[in-house]
Amino acid sequence: MTTPLRLGIAGLGTVGVGVVKIVRQKADLLAARTGRPVEITAVSARSRNKDRGVNLSTYAWEDDPVALAKRDDVDVYVELMGGENGPAKASIEAALATGKHVVTANKALLAHHGQALAQTAEAAGRVIRFEAAVAGGIPVIKALSEGLAGNEITRVMGVMNGTCNYILTRMQDAGLPYEEVFEEANKLGYLEADPNLDVGGIDAGHKLSLLSSIAFGTQVNFAGVELEGIQRISTEDIRQAEDLGYKIKLLGVAQLTGRGLEQRMSPCLVPADSPLGQLKGGTNMVVIEGDAVEQIVLRGPGAGEGPTASAVIGDVCDIARGFRLPTFGIPASDLVEAKTAQSNSPAPFYLHLTLVDRPGALAKIAAALGEHGISIDRMRQTRHDDTAAPVLIVTHKTQRSDLDAAINAMQASGVMAADPVALRIETV
Amino acid sequence: MTTPLRLGIAGLGTVGVGVVKIVRQKADLLAARTGRPVEITAVSARSRNKDRGVNLSTYAWEDDPVALAKRDDVDVYVELMGGENGPAKASIEAALATGKHVVTANKALLAHHGQALAQTAEAAGRVIRFEAAVAGGIPVIKALSEGLAGNEITRVMGVMNGTCNYILTRMQDAGLPYEEVFEEANKLGYLEADPNLDVGGIDAGHKLSLLSSIAFGTQVNFAGVELEGIQRISTEDIRQAEDLGYKIKLLGVAQLTGRGLEQRMSPCLVPADSPLGQLKGGTNMVVIEGDAVEQIVLRGPGAGEGPTASAVIGDVCDIARGFRLPTFGIPASDLVEAKTAQSNSPAPFYLHLTLVDRPGALAKIAAALGEHGISIDRMRQTRHDDTAAPVLIVTHKTQRSDLDAAINAMQASGVMAADPVALRIETV
Repeated sequence: MTTPLRLGIAGLGTVGVGVVKIVRQKADLLAARTGRPVEITAVSARSRNKDRGVNLSTYAWEDDPVALAKRDDVDVYVELMGGENGPAKASIEAALATGKHVVTANKALLAHHGQALAQTAEAAGRVIRFEAAVAGGIPVIKALSEGLAGNEITRVMGVMNGTCNYILTRMQDAGLPYEEVFEEANKLGYLEADPNLDVGGIDAGHKLSLLSSIAFGTQVNFAGVELEGIQRISTEDIRQAEDLGYKIKLLGVAQLTGRGLEQRMSPCLVPADSPLGQLKGGTNMVVIEGDAVEQIVLRGPGAGEGPTASAVIGDVCDIARGFRLPTFGIPASDLVEAKTAQSNSPAPFYLHLTLVDRPGALAKIAAALGEHGISIDRMRQTRHDDTAAPVLIVTHKTQRSDLDAAINAMQASGVMAADPVALRIETV
Repeated sequence: MTTPLRLGIAGLGTVGVGVVKIVRQKADLLAARTGRPVEITAVSARSRNKDRGVNLSTYAWEDDPVALAKRDDVDVYVELMGGENGPAKASIEAALATGKHVVTANKALLAHHGQALAQTAEAAGRVIRFEAAVAGGIPVIKALSEGLAGNEITRVMGVMNGTCNYILTRMQDAGLPYEEVFEEANKLGYLEADPNLDVGGIDAGHKLSLLSSIAFGTQVNFAGVELEGIQRISTEDIRQAEDLGYKIKLLGVAQLTGRGLEQRMSPCLVPADSPLGQLKGGTNMVVIEGDAVEQIVLRGPGAGEGPTASAVIGDVCDIARGFRLPTFGIPASDLVEAKTAQSNSPAPFYLHLTLVDRPGALAKIAAALGEHGISIDRMRQTRHDDTAAPVLIVTHKTQRSDLDAAINAMQASGVMAADPVALRIETV
């Protein structure tokens, strides 16, 4: 046995406590697997006296995570506080400045400051690992940056926000409206303090931007992710999609095209019998496509004490084993700035239009589509009241820019009684 | 850039050629990802003059893989010939003896000699990597030994022989009998030279034994894998299983119980709407369950030039990056000898019995089950001819040992007109 690897853990919420438990309960296993003891020397959290159901008395306590990060008896600084700035950023910078490796679950921080932090880490000869930041317990960062290193990655897709998938699945299964399920999820503690991080697609967008960087060798470009939340999805859309053989998922897609890097996180229709279509509740799924490997699908729990701690400990074990890898797979200085491309690769779209109930309204819609070169695969008019006529259209493959132009023309024509819903149909 | 990593490749079949192509075509990508150039210096195969569609003229040629393995200008010996003994074994031993790392896709070799080879490698301070040996392009060895290193693994399951899954899927979809689909698969070149390696479950059993070793820290124990092939599966069984809401898959299951290590590779019924149930054709799937991560499901192509070469190159990149890991995750000397346990954890079973057509036959069957404490969940008698009555039974959970005893009693009672089919129902 060589010298122990000493961890300092900042943040003792669900995940932090999970990490402490594994280190305490599996000391022998971790030592056998990594060739050296893995120990905790110091911890930090907001409240010292809270009962967390785990014995912390053998560890030094720091009120200030920056002080923890700087301690001489810490080799790896484990940041589990979260937050895109503030103490998380300051403490990680302090850790790197004083020669520590960093393990974090903080996607927001890396989505905004990943490039700068990667440069700092590599200049200091230290690593930043963040398996727990993306798709919970699924070892997707490892698969992408190591297992599939022989591939030109062509596309990465994923359902990576368990809360949104819970809401959409529950709306589907129970036939409950969005607002009601949202409240339910809130009561269950599934939502972030700012729920828009979840339902607005921001959290999942952070994750996608990190995967993109590794997949395509580009600098993290969260600003380039087209974000659309699930707030406008209705039970009617879910029902109609199901009737057409699809499910609605908050799906992230990233691909490098001749025009630049396309990244979008938006509600999409996926075939009901596809792996993505069958995903239920808080489970996450990531699909990776590479020129050699074709397609790999990874599925697992996207959150929770055990799964997220599992990912953190995986990173810790890699460090204990001496594995050293640049933050995003290649040196930060080699990551190229990605030109943001509007997501415009052709796809069929689902349109849910609400028309004023008067003669010729449908003709104007059809004309607007036709004038923009969009042909109709299927159309149906659903239940109908005195003032408005809901019309559902599935288009043939078209570009989003053409569709947007057609929608503008529809709206200008005065026959639309409500804003349209337009969802991409993604075949996997 | 540091010094190049130099590969010697033995075996230039589909996979070998795929590896050569990636190294030639992606030199920049591999160098960026690993921090050093990855090159091929020498190759070996049976026939030098065969046109393989790739330029080999810049590499030294060796007729003898052992000579290749010993070359001074080789850092990593890549063994892609296959075979559980013979040149594969001799050359890997030669490579380790002369200080090379080894990358191989050879599951048969490792299933039989993994422990000895791991000891040799570790004594020499070299690694043996074998991602390509299990589940083709899926980075499952990496997920299990690295990403999930913080878990006590509780169970590993998988569909890991694409040929068997192709045969079963095709029988299901086309309603064709086993013999016909077997011939079809043979003509398509899907079968090993000795087809029993595939349809007898041996190849998949090799793979399961390797995963077991990593999962449970035990010495590879292929002899302890209970093997049952797919040769006796009929279209009638497939149809009946479907009717009951199941699909038949050649499924491997390994778990460490209080009684020892259970490993079985056998046709099972799995729920039709489960990830395993939906697997079609040559695709593989591995399910890993750990105490922290709960359940991870990995899906991808189980064979083929690109996917298998992707796995080989992943291993090569890890070596180029300086990652060093014992062959089975922990040092070979720490792997414990696994006591083989009869696979006896309770499960429901599907029974397809053929009874002689005479009064009281069914009563004897029911009595045999009852006397062994086995209760019946569902029973039906299907189409019926003059001489024999097929009876289908789904039992409640029972142990295989009790079921075997009941089947012995049925056979002794003289009412069975044919050997029974008994398939475990595995809920995932």
